[in-house]
Amino acid sequence: MKVFFIAALTFACLQFGEASETGFLMPVPQEISWDNGFLHVDSSFSIVVEGADSGRTGLAAIRTLSRLSKETGINFAPLPAGPDARVLRIISRKPAPLYPGLGIDESYSMAVSGRGAVLTADNFFGIVHGLETFLQLLRLDSSGFSIPAVVIKDAPRFPWRGLLIDVCRHWIPMDVLKRTIDGMAAVKLNVLHWHLSEDQGFRIESKRFPRLHSLGSDGLYYSQDQAREVIAYAAERGIRVVPEFDMPGHTTSWFVGHPELASMPGPYTLQRTWGVFDPAMDPTREDVYGFLDTFIEEMTGLFPDPFFHIGGDEVNGKQWDASPGVNEFKERHSLKDNHDLQVYFNKRISDILKKHKRRMIGWDEVLHPDLPHNIVVQSWRGHKALAATVQQGSEGILSWGYYLDHIRPASYHYGIDPLADDALYLPTDKKQMVLGGEACMWAEFVSEENIDSRIWPRTAAIAERFWSPKAVTDTKDMYRRLAHVSKRLTWLGLTHISSYEKMLERLTGYEEIDALQTLSDVLEPVKFYERPHTRKYTQQTPLNRLVDATRPESNTAREFAELVESYLAEPMQEGQAKALRWQLTQWRENDKKLQPLLSTSPLLVEAIPLSKKLVRVSQIGLDALDAIEQRSSLGDRKQGLATALSEEQAPAAELLLMIVSPIQFLLNAAP
Amino acid sequence: MKVFFIAALTFACLQFGEASETGFLMPVPQEISWDNGFLHVDSSFSIVVEGADSGRTGLAAIRTLSRLSKETGINFAPLPAGPDARVLRIISRKPAPLYPGLGIDESYSMAVSGRGAVLTADNFFGIVHGLETFLQLLRLDSSGFSIPAVVIKDAPRFPWRGLLIDVCRHWIPMDVLKRTIDGMAAVKLNVLHWHLSEDQGFRIESKRFPRLHSLGSDGLYYSQDQAREVIAYAAERGIRVVPEFDMPGHTTSWFVGHPELASMPGPYTLQRTWGVFDPAMDPTREDVYGFLDTFIEEMTGLFPDPFFHIGGDEVNGKQWDASPGVNEFKERHSLKDNHDLQVYFNKRISDILKKHKRRMIGWDEVLHPDLPHNIVVQSWRGHKALAATVQQGSEGILSWGYYLDHIRPASYHYGIDPLADDALYLPTDKKQMVLGGEACMWAEFVSEENIDSRIWPRTAAIAERFWSPKAVTDTKDMYRRLAHVSKRLTWLGLTHISSYEKMLERLTGYEEIDALQTLSDVLEPVKFYERPHTRKYTQQTPLNRLVDATRPESNTAREFAELVESYLAEPMQEGQAKALRWQLTQWRENDKKLQPLLSTSPLLVEAIPLSKKLVRVSQIGLDALDAIEQRSSLGDRKQGLATALSEEQAPAAELLLMIVSPIQFLLNAAP
Repeated sequence: MKVFFIAALTFACLQFGEASETGFLMPVPQEISWDNGFLHVDSSFSIVVEGADSGRTGLAAIRTLSRLSKETGINFAPLPAGPDARVLRIISRKPAPLYPGLGIDESYSMAVSGRGAVLTADNFFGIVHGLETFLQLLRLDSSGFSIPAVVIKDAPRFPWRGLLIDVCRHWIPMDVLKRTIDGMAAVKLNVLHWHLSEDQGFRIESKRFPRLHSLGSDGLYYSQDQAREVIAYAAERGIRVVPEFDMPGHTTSWFVGHPELASMPGPYTLQRTWGVFDPAMDPTREDVYGFLDTFIEEMTGLFPDPFFHIGGDEVNGKQWDASPGVNEFKERHSLKDNHDLQVYFNKRISDILKKHKRRMIGWDEVLHPDLPHNIVVQSWRGHKALAATVQQGSEGILSWGYYLDHIRPASYHYGIDPLADDALYLPTDKKQMVLGGEACMWAEFVSEENIDSRIWPRTAAIAERFWSPKAVTDTKDMYRRLAHVSKRLTWLGLTHISSYEKMLERLTGYEEIDALQTLSDVLEPVKFYERPHTRKYTQQTPLNRLVDATRPESNTAREFAELVESYLAEPMQEGQAKALRWQLTQWRENDKKLQPLLSTSPLLVEAIPLSKKLVRVSQIGLDALDAIEQRSSLGDRKQGLATALSEEQAPAAELLLMIVSPIQFLLNAAP
Repeated sequence: MKVFFIAALTFACLQFGEASETGFLMPVPQEISWDNGFLHVDSSFSIVVEGADSGRTGLAAIRTLSRLSKETGINFAPLPAGPDARVLRIISRKPAPLYPGLGIDESYSMAVSGRGAVLTADNFFGIVHGLETFLQLLRLDSSGFSIPAVVIKDAPRFPWRGLLIDVCRHWIPMDVLKRTIDGMAAVKLNVLHWHLSEDQGFRIESKRFPRLHSLGSDGLYYSQDQAREVIAYAAERGIRVVPEFDMPGHTTSWFVGHPELASMPGPYTLQRTWGVFDPAMDPTREDVYGFLDTFIEEMTGLFPDPFFHIGGDEVNGKQWDASPGVNEFKERHSLKDNHDLQVYFNKRISDILKKHKRRMIGWDEVLHPDLPHNIVVQSWRGHKALAATVQQGSEGILSWGYYLDHIRPASYHYGIDPLADDALYLPTDKKQMVLGGEACMWAEFVSEENIDSRIWPRTAAIAERFWSPKAVTDTKDMYRRLAHVSKRLTWLGLTHISSYEKMLERLTGYEEIDALQTLSDVLEPVKFYERPHTRKYTQQTPLNRLVDATRPESNTAREFAELVESYLAEPMQEGQAKALRWQLTQWRENDKKLQPLLSTSPLLVEAIPLSKKLVRVSQIGLDALDAIEQRSSLGDRKQGLATALSEEQAPAAELLLMIVSPIQFLLNAAP
């Protein structure tokens, strides 16, 4: 039996690069000890529930069997099918509260042998994580479907592992939310941060103030019953639901039905574009606090989580500056600027939340010494801001570096640790005040059709960062497992793979998509906030272009870059040169097949320059490869090619060609 | 304006082979007149509802907009967005009953111009068909998304256009049923024949006799609320739901909870294998009729359709022969054989159904002069049986020729007309007594995972047979449209395309599926009832093998056959020879890539001979092509190759290699 521990910071973790150590587990558990043998999974397999919480553990077991059934095509008997049956025993030691809370024990251990498997945990919320690990262990090998013999002891590194979903910029329906929750549970995330109100939409039914949702949502809102359904669905999977009602800014949608809350008279209409806007609640009026007290009372009756997110970000202060009443109030209360005014507002809201037994959470901007220390600050600004939070005595979570809408590769997010370079900014005894982090799916350029492809699989890498030991950092091994996990997430109904093909098919008018996909596979959307710089977007702009279909991270380009790297490390390897040449030739010739299609579809005309770009860049790659292989100098041409190549870095149709950079390496290496 | 009528039996219909005439409409409407111009579909497009039934018509309009939104990626405004908005006006002339019934007016007409579109119908059930036509007209062309200008007048040829779903042999969950109903509506089918009880399962909740479903279903049954949900869902889409409770045979599942209904004492357990079994209700006992009276009363309260299907097929009579009581009864009532006894049973059931205001429908075997003429007979035996029905004065529908589980190509089903060769067997004045037909999806080898691929797209061709003018018979044009419709059906969530790839991926253990798919794409499962001849199947046998994934009809092989045909019609065409050679070489070389994979997966080992078969057959094809191209005789080798080829027709792993036959043509043509 090989025993393998990485709970402590040892160099042993490097071995996790070996497939045999991490298998296809994601996140990697704290301790794994592989053994010989395996538990055969056939139709006699079943699950037996013992210990506390047998009701919902039983339901979790049934869901697990149903997922095993999908993944194997085998129907399992609901009850053990005789003394020879292979059984997973689940033992939950203590009853857990109905809803998961911050800091609950999420640990579990599991032992699998040829005779059976046992999963034990302190409580239900460890069990659900263990069941996901069990499912990830499932393999098809020469003996059939099986679970390898193993002993796993596991617990999360951080207690707060979240995903923010913005349902305001674009509407996200119930079924998408539910499958997102399923995906979160599969990679052991435990907080759904539900961004429910924005300038562009107020997305939850209020029975106390029905004009909030009826006038503020275009009819696209969740009923309270639906919210309860989401909360229960999440809780069954060990996931907390933290609602966010961003205030006092980002509140235009509130003012459509309730202009009296705003700092300037209305009327207001829903904001249809993206950015930071002027409307803000009036922090000087008691009736505003009365309204919010009633509203928060209603929402805390609906959302059981002890945290309530008040946003608090990006107030530009223009309405406050323009309001005589606000200015007078500031003067009367000796508030020297709008920041002080917002602190005043936050303190008032903090009192209301305290009354309703909730802890406040807000973005960086809410941090202030005058606020109670039990608030949690969510940092979009970075490690320094997070350190400032902790040093002021409040707990914090990190979202900087985890913005999925920035369209960065998984490796980028994976490389950011909530406690990165801790020696530099955080005393050891304060580390535990960093509770974890949250990936953020802001939805300006996201629809129900492509949201899965923006979240998955990259979020699985972030989830691993939040769960696994800090030393688990092998990017190559991460990508190996991520590719596998990505495919298996589709059994949950996630559409990150299927919708790509369907969107390409639509773009072609149902013609063959092969040539288009060859191009699209080496493209990525532009990064950060570059999209609105190139054209005007509104909430109604169709997200049906190539940039909306193309994946956030080009695996093809990444693998091509690896091939180039490995070729250049030991040049003249015949097999690699051949593979490079084949690939570059395919790309160069692709335009011939693709051009007729591009010119007939009005949605694809903008891709013509990209296809031409691929021809040119591939040709430079072939030239460089020729020079390297034939050891014949490119001479004066080399500088010209380098210049040409660097120009190809520029985006077209809001898309970047991701093979330019590896071809630059190839060209640099050419004589 | 080109005007085109095919309502009458003119030769004009031949022109339907032209893409411009039939577009991508399926089923082809009765009359189409294409005009120049088009209605642009952008975010200003909306639908306005006028006339009767505005409530459910409005819901149908919202569903249509939502589907347009999915198909285009455009968000549409819920209300017309100003005077320039492009609008589809819907006008329903009369209120329709809540549920569609046999013979209701399903006609509609539609006129589309650049300024707008109008859809009119006698009632709601014509409107829903018109909306599907409107969706099928949607195109992406150089101007963007649009509906071509057209005038359509349409009505079905047959009033009964059904699909039988067997939910007993394997369980079919609610979501699959619903998306199947969506698919049916898309191709204008109007009867869901819900086969709810069988030897292997009793699939509906009975509140009067709860042991029926609780002991007869493994817990896999529809609650009455779910049944109501299905009925309402279907009715909103113009589809009737006809329940079938097969009796007196195929009733083992009833007897698990109610052995007293059987002709022999129990106990009974659920049947787990496939075939015709002995258990049958006891037709001699009054308490059996009392039970059925109560049960039918309950079920007719649940199912509003005027028809009630009693099955009535395949009673082998063994239990009756073995029962002294039954024999005595037969003697006392002068019933000379079991057929007479079953007629007696059917008459009693017919009386019960009359009491509960239902018309009886049953399979061929129920036909008898003593039964009331208002029964409908569903023929699985063929046109002669159907003619006998009509000649005895009862109406009939045809299912012979439409068994989807026989795994025949779409062209086969398409070639069978419910009124085929009518001159031979049916007087003209009786033709209208043939009400239509039903495709049948028997589920011995069908799971929730592959049922979509067994139903779609072939059922769309059958639906056209039931709806379109008889003269619409161009198979090539049918396949052209079928390929398009198949892709677009996926927007309804149908998985006939996606689950193929997922099942192949599972078979490979998440390796690259390309080589496996190259093989699988030219395979088809064995036909008719050959599968159980090769191995023992039970209800628990996993349907996760290659034969379960492979599509019922190989488009690749069909297209290859067309290429061979066209090459042989004018040999020595360089382009075609090149395409043939390329394809055959790909196939021949595929085994090299595939073998390593096949030998590692226990689920794929059985495919090794198939991959070898593909090598051998492709090589013979290449030899034949060489001989043809080089005009060099194969001489004595030819006979040997022909013999070898004919041996390759034999199945392996319950799969057939579909390119053998076109290669036989190629070999025959070789000198």
